[in-house]
Amino acid sequence: MPTQSDLSFVRPLFLGPAAENDELFESLVVEFLRDHTFWRRNFHPEDGQRIGADAKNDPDFLDFQARTRRELYQLSAELKRAVPFFHPRYVGHMSSDLLLPGLVAKILTTLYNPNNVSEEAAPQTLEKELQVGEQLARMFGYETDDDASPCAWGHLTSGGTIANYEALWNFRSVKFYPLALQAGAKEISFNPHAGPKAKPFHDYSKWELLNLSMQETIALRRELAGLIHDEADPAVLRAFRNAVKAERIESLGTAGFFLKHHVTPPVVLVSASAHYSWEKGMKVLGFGTQNLVKVEVDDHMRMDLEDLDRKLDAAFSRKVPVLAVVGMLGTTEFGTIDPIHGIVAARDRAREAGRDFGIHVDGAWGGYLTTVFRRPDGSFMDRSDFSDEFTYFPSETVHAAFRAIADTDSITVDPHKLGYIPYAAGAFIARDREVVDFIAQQAAYVFDLGDREHHIPRREQLHRLGQYILEGSKPGAAAAAVHVTHNVLPLHSDGLGRLVRLTLRSCERFWDSAQIMAERLAGRVTLIVPFEPDSNLICLALNPAGNRDLARMNAFSREIFARMKVDPTQPVQAKTFIGSYTSLEKGNLPSGQADRILHDLGIDPVTFVAAPEALDRDAAHIFILRHTLMNPWLLDGPGERSYIDLYWEYLEDVIDEVLERDTP
Amino acid sequence: MPTQSDLSFVRPLFLGPAAENDELFESLVVEFLRDHTFWRRNFHPEDGQRIGADAKNDPDFLDFQARTRRELYQLSAELKRAVPFFHPRYVGHMSSDLLLPGLVAKILTTLYNPNNVSEEAAPQTLEKELQVGEQLARMFGYETDDDASPCAWGHLTSGGTIANYEALWNFRSVKFYPLALQAGAKEISFNPHAGPKAKPFHDYSKWELLNLSMQETIALRRELAGLIHDEADPAVLRAFRNAVKAERIESLGTAGFFLKHHVTPPVVLVSASAHYSWEKGMKVLGFGTQNLVKVEVDDHMRMDLEDLDRKLDAAFSRKVPVLAVVGMLGTTEFGTIDPIHGIVAARDRAREAGRDFGIHVDGAWGGYLTTVFRRPDGSFMDRSDFSDEFTYFPSETVHAAFRAIADTDSITVDPHKLGYIPYAAGAFIARDREVVDFIAQQAAYVFDLGDREHHIPRREQLHRLGQYILEGSKPGAAAAAVHVTHNVLPLHSDGLGRLVRLTLRSCERFWDSAQIMAERLAGRVTLIVPFEPDSNLICLALNPAGNRDLARMNAFSREIFARMKVDPTQPVQAKTFIGSYTSLEKGNLPSGQADRILHDLGIDPVTFVAAPEALDRDAAHIFILRHTLMNPWLLDGPGERSYIDLYWEYLEDVIDEVLERDTP
Repeated sequence: MPTQSDLSFVRPLFLGPAAENDELFESLVVEFLRDHTFWRRNFHPEDGQRIGADAKNDPDFLDFQARTRRELYQLSAELKRAVPFFHPRYVGHMSSDLLLPGLVAKILTTLYNPNNVSEEAAPQTLEKELQVGEQLARMFGYETDDDASPCAWGHLTSGGTIANYEALWNFRSVKFYPLALQAGAKEISFNPHAGPKAKPFHDYSKWELLNLSMQETIALRRELAGLIHDEADPAVLRAFRNAVKAERIESLGTAGFFLKHHVTPPVVLVSASAHYSWEKGMKVLGFGTQNLVKVEVDDHMRMDLEDLDRKLDAAFSRKVPVLAVVGMLGTTEFGTIDPIHGIVAARDRAREAGRDFGIHVDGAWGGYLTTVFRRPDGSFMDRSDFSDEFTYFPSETVHAAFRAIADTDSITVDPHKLGYIPYAAGAFIARDREVVDFIAQQAAYVFDLGDREHHIPRREQLHRLGQYILEGSKPGAAAAAVHVTHNVLPLHSDGLGRLVRLTLRSCERFWDSAQIMAERLAGRVTLIVPFEPDSNLICLALNPAGNRDLARMNAFSREIFARMKVDPTQPVQAKTFIGSYTSLEKGNLPSGQADRILHDLGIDPVTFVAAPEALDRDAAHIFILRHTLMNPWLLDGPGERSYIDLYWEYLEDVIDEVLERDTP
Repeated sequence: MPTQSDLSFVRPLFLGPAAENDELFESLVVEFLRDHTFWRRNFHPEDGQRIGADAKNDPDFLDFQARTRRELYQLSAELKRAVPFFHPRYVGHMSSDLLLPGLVAKILTTLYNPNNVSEEAAPQTLEKELQVGEQLARMFGYETDDDASPCAWGHLTSGGTIANYEALWNFRSVKFYPLALQAGAKEISFNPHAGPKAKPFHDYSKWELLNLSMQETIALRRELAGLIHDEADPAVLRAFRNAVKAERIESLGTAGFFLKHHVTPPVVLVSASAHYSWEKGMKVLGFGTQNLVKVEVDDHMRMDLEDLDRKLDAAFSRKVPVLAVVGMLGTTEFGTIDPIHGIVAARDRAREAGRDFGIHVDGAWGGYLTTVFRRPDGSFMDRSDFSDEFTYFPSETVHAAFRAIADTDSITVDPHKLGYIPYAAGAFIARDREVVDFIAQQAAYVFDLGDREHHIPRREQLHRLGQYILEGSKPGAAAAAVHVTHNVLPLHSDGLGRLVRLTLRSCERFWDSAQIMAERLAGRVTLIVPFEPDSNLICLALNPAGNRDLARMNAFSREIFARMKVDPTQPVQAKTFIGSYTSLEKGNLPSGQADRILHDLGIDPVTFVAAPEALDRDAAHIFILRHTLMNPWLLDGPGERSYIDLYWEYLEDVIDEVLERDTP
C-alpha cells in the first residue's frame, strides 16, 4: 500500500483520474491564455485593432465561427472514445496521465509557437532545450561543465526512433573520419607524427584508424588542425580541408566509401529483444539489416554477455568494424534492462586489444528510471539503499547497468514516455559535444554567415541547433514542457524519482500477487510471469489447464486480451481494464529459454516452430499479456482495494468466462 | 487594398494581431478543458476520487502547487520576449499567426494525448491523419479513390526535413527492388515470362531493371507473386521470399548491395537553390553528398531545364541510376518555384529512351499554394482566371508547374508553414500507396500478428501507421489540428485558397512599391528586387550609392538588418518590424545571374569571389533582405496605410540612419 506521504506527493502532480485538480488546471490555462492575449495587445498598441467589435456581427464572421464550433464539437465528441490513458484502469502501452506542469507549459508555449531550429525563431525555448539536454545528461552521469572534457550535450527529437537514428548518424560520422583525414593528408603529403601512437600519420593502418575511440578521433582532428595551421599557408590549408571533406563517408556515400577504402561495412550489435526501430535505422542509414547483429538474450530477456563476446570476436577477427553496441535500458516489449556494465567492460577489454566500438543506450523507456538511483547531490545510490522500500528492485544486474551508463557514448530517452510529457518529445544525449563538429550542416538563411566559427564558444554554437540534428523546424513548446517538468520534479530520487519509485513498487506488488493468483487459478489455467520484471513492466502467460498445444494457448490468451483491448466501436466505459500484449518469437528466443517457459506452462515444445503448418496446434510465437505499470494510482484504489487487486479480480472473471465459452 | 469581403473573410480565422478574438478563443478552450474533465469523471465514476478536497490543503500539495505556479509564471514571463510571429510587423521567417480552429484542436486533443503510431493508441486521430493525407493528395491532383490505380496516401511527419528523408527512403526501396527480385528468382531457378517486356525474367539486364518505373516495379512484384503462388509449393515460395528479402538493399546495405551487383550508386538531382535538408538527407541515407547533383538555376532562381537535361544525360550515359529529381515548390530561401512540368517532361522523354527516375516535389513551403489553383469542384484553374485579382501571379511557368504536380511521385508539404498550424506538422504524400509494401516494418507489440496481411484491405492496413513511416510514436494532436483546419478551410480557392491569395496579393503590392521606392531612394541607395517573386516571398538587395565593393554592400545591408533582427536582450516592443535575410552564394549562383544582379546594384563583379582574401572589399556571398509575406493583415493597417506602406517608411528611415552613421 502507498504511504500517506506517497499519496500527498502524487496528488498535486496530475489532473487526476477523476480530474480532481480541474480548478487548478483551468485557472492556470485561462490565466496564461489571457496573459498571451494581453502580450499581443502590448505589441504596437498604437496600431489599434484589425477586427472591430462590429465586424463580429458580420454574417461571414458568424458563419465561420459556427463552422469552427461544429468541427471542434465533432472532434471533442469523437475523442470521448479516445484511450483513457490517464486512468489506473489503463495498464497497456507506455502512456499515462500527463504531469500537470508540463501539460500547462506545453499549452502556454504553443500560443507563442517558437521554432527551436534556431535562436532567431526561439529566443527562450532553444536555450531551455539545451538545458534539458544537460539535465538529462547529468542524470545519466555525464559531465556538463563547460570546461569538462568530455562535456555532454543533448536535445529533443520527435521521439526515440529519431534519437536512435541520430545515434547511428553520430557514430558513423566519427568512426570513419580518420580514414578521410588520412586520405586528405596523403593528398597534400602532410605526414606529421600524430595520433595516440605519436607516429607518422600515414603509417596508421586502416584498421588502426577504424579502431580509434571517439575521443581519440576528436583529439586527432584537433591535433592535425593545429599542426597544419602552424605549418601551412592558407591555400594548403584550404586544399587539405576540401580533400578531407571530399573523402568523408558523408560525401562519398557508404557504397563509395567502402569501395574506395576496401573496408568491410560496419556492424551494429543489439540484443534480440531490441525495438524494431533499430532494424528500421539500419535500413534508413543504408547499413542494411544484415549488418545488425542480434545478440542472444539470457533467461531474463537481457543481452547475453557471452554471446556478445562471441559476436564481437567474430566481427573483429574478420576485420569487420563494429560501429556500436546498443544496450536496451528497458525494452519496449518487456521492460528488461541489458547489462550496460557488461557492455562497457567488453568495450574496455576490446580497447586493450586495439579494437573499439561506440556504446549507445536505448533508454527510450527506461532512461527516466535513472532518477531513482541519483541522489539530489548527484551521487549514485548503493543497492542497499533500496532495501527499505523494495523487495526485489533493483537486481544486482539492474543496479550495475544504471551505474555504468556514465561510461557510454550516447543515450536515447523519451520524455513522452516515463517523463509523463505529451507527445512528441524524445531526446538524444551525447557524452561528448565535440561530436557536433563532425555532423554540422550549414544553411545560409538559418545560420549567421562569416567565418566566425572559431570565435563563438561551443555552448553558444549549439544555439544554431538545426545544424546539429536530424530534424529541422521543431516545437519549442516541447522543450518548455520538459523544462518546467524537470524544474518542479528534478531528475533525482526526491524529485521525479519519487514518482518513478511508485511505479516500481506497483510492479513488485503485481509480481507478488501473480504468485498468489497462480495458486488460486491452478486447475483452471497455468499462469506464469515468464521472466523477472527489471522495472515497471510485467508480462503474464496463460495456458488453460491440460492444454499442450501452443496454438491453442495463444488463441485462449488472445481471447482474454480481446476483452481488454481498445475498441473504437464501443464506449470506453464498456472497458473494465485496458491492457496490451506482446509476443515471444521463435526467431528471437534462445531455445533454452523457450523450453523453460513452455515447460512452466505445460506446453509441448514441439508445437513452437518457425514455420507452423498445423495452425490449430503449432505457432511461431508465444502470445503474452503485457502490463505497463506507470500510472501513479495503481497501489491506491476505491474502498480498501488497490487497482492491482481489482485487475486480478477482473482477470479471473475473464479467464472463467473464456474457459466456460470454450467448454462445449 | 483588401476588399471588405477579404477582411470579413479573414477576421474570424485567427486570434488576431491585438488578440481581438480573445473571447471566442477563451470560451472554446475553457469549454473543451471542461469537456475533457467531465469525460474523465465519467470513466468508472464508481471509483470515486483519488484526490480528496481536503488533500488540497496538505502542505505538500500547496508547496508543489506553488512551485508549479512559480515555474509557469517564469516561463510565461520569458515568453514575453518570444518572437511576435502573429503580427503583420513580423515579415521574417515562415511563421505567422495560427489558425484559431487548428490551434484549439491542437490544445483540445493534447489533453487526450493520442499516439498516432497505431490505432490502438489513437482510435480517432489516426484515421484523421490518413484523411488529411488524402485531402492533401487530392489538392495536388493525385487520385484517392480506393479503386483508383495508383491510389495516393499520405501522413504527417514532424516536419519537412523528415518528409524529404522519407521520399529518398521510399524511392530507394522501390528502385532497387527489381534487382533483388531477379537475384531471388535466379536462386530458385524461377524464370517466367514477366515484366513490361513480357520476356524471361532472368533476361532483363540490370540496367533495364534499374529503369523500371515505380508502377512497373509494383506491377512486376505482383505479377511474380501471382505466378509463383500458382506454380510452387509453400517451401519454394518461402525460399523465394527469403532470398528476395536477403538480396534487398535494405538487407545488404548500400555498400553491400552495390558491391554485389556492380552497379554504380544512384544520384539525386536537385536545383542549386534547394533546402539544405537535401544535403543532410543524402548523408543520413548513406548516398553521400557527392551523389547530390546540383542543377543550375536560371535567372528566376528556378531549376534550369537545359542544365537538368545535360546532367541527366551525363548520368544516364555513364550508366548511373538516377534515383530522383527533386523539384522545389517554393524554395525556403527565395520562395521560387521550379518548373515541375519541365521535370515531368524530362522524365517522360527519359522513359521513351528506357531510362527512369522518380520525381519528388519539395513543397514544404509552397505546397499549400496549390489551394489557389484548385476549384471547389476539383478542377484546375486556367491562368486567365487569375487576371482579375492579380497583376503578375501566376507566371506561365508557375501555373504550369502547379498543374504538373499531379504527374509526380511524391510531395513534401508543411502544415506548420503555409497551413498556419502550430509546430510540429509536416507531411509526406505519395501518389501510389502500394509503395508501402516495400517499406513495411513489423513490431510484434504494436501490430497484430498472424499471416492475415492478405485479407486486410489496404486502407485498413494503413492504420498500422508505424509500419510505414520513419518515425515511431507521434502526436495525434497534430493530425486533429490539421484535420479541423482542412474541414473549416477546405483545400481549394474558396477555402484556404482565399487566405493564401491574400498573401500573394501582399507580395505583388510589395513588389510594385519596391519599384517606387527604388526611384525615391535613388542617389542614396540602389535598391533592387534581385529576382521576380514566384509566390509570397520577396527579397531586396541594397547598395549605398556609389559603392562598388561587395563586402561594403554586405556590411551595409547587415547593418540595416541588425535593426530588424530578433534580439532576446531587448523588449520585443523595441522592434518596429522584424525581418530575415538570406545570401546568394558564389558556389550556387551561375555567373550570368551574378553578373546581372551585381550590375543592377552597381557592384564590381570582381569583388564576388569564392575565397575572399581582401575582406574589406570581396565577399563570397551577396547578403539580401528576405521577406515572407504570409501575415493576412499586411494589406490592411492602422489609419489609411497598410503594413507594407509602414514597412517602406521604416526601411527608408533605417537606410538614412545607417547611411548617416557610416558617413564621417
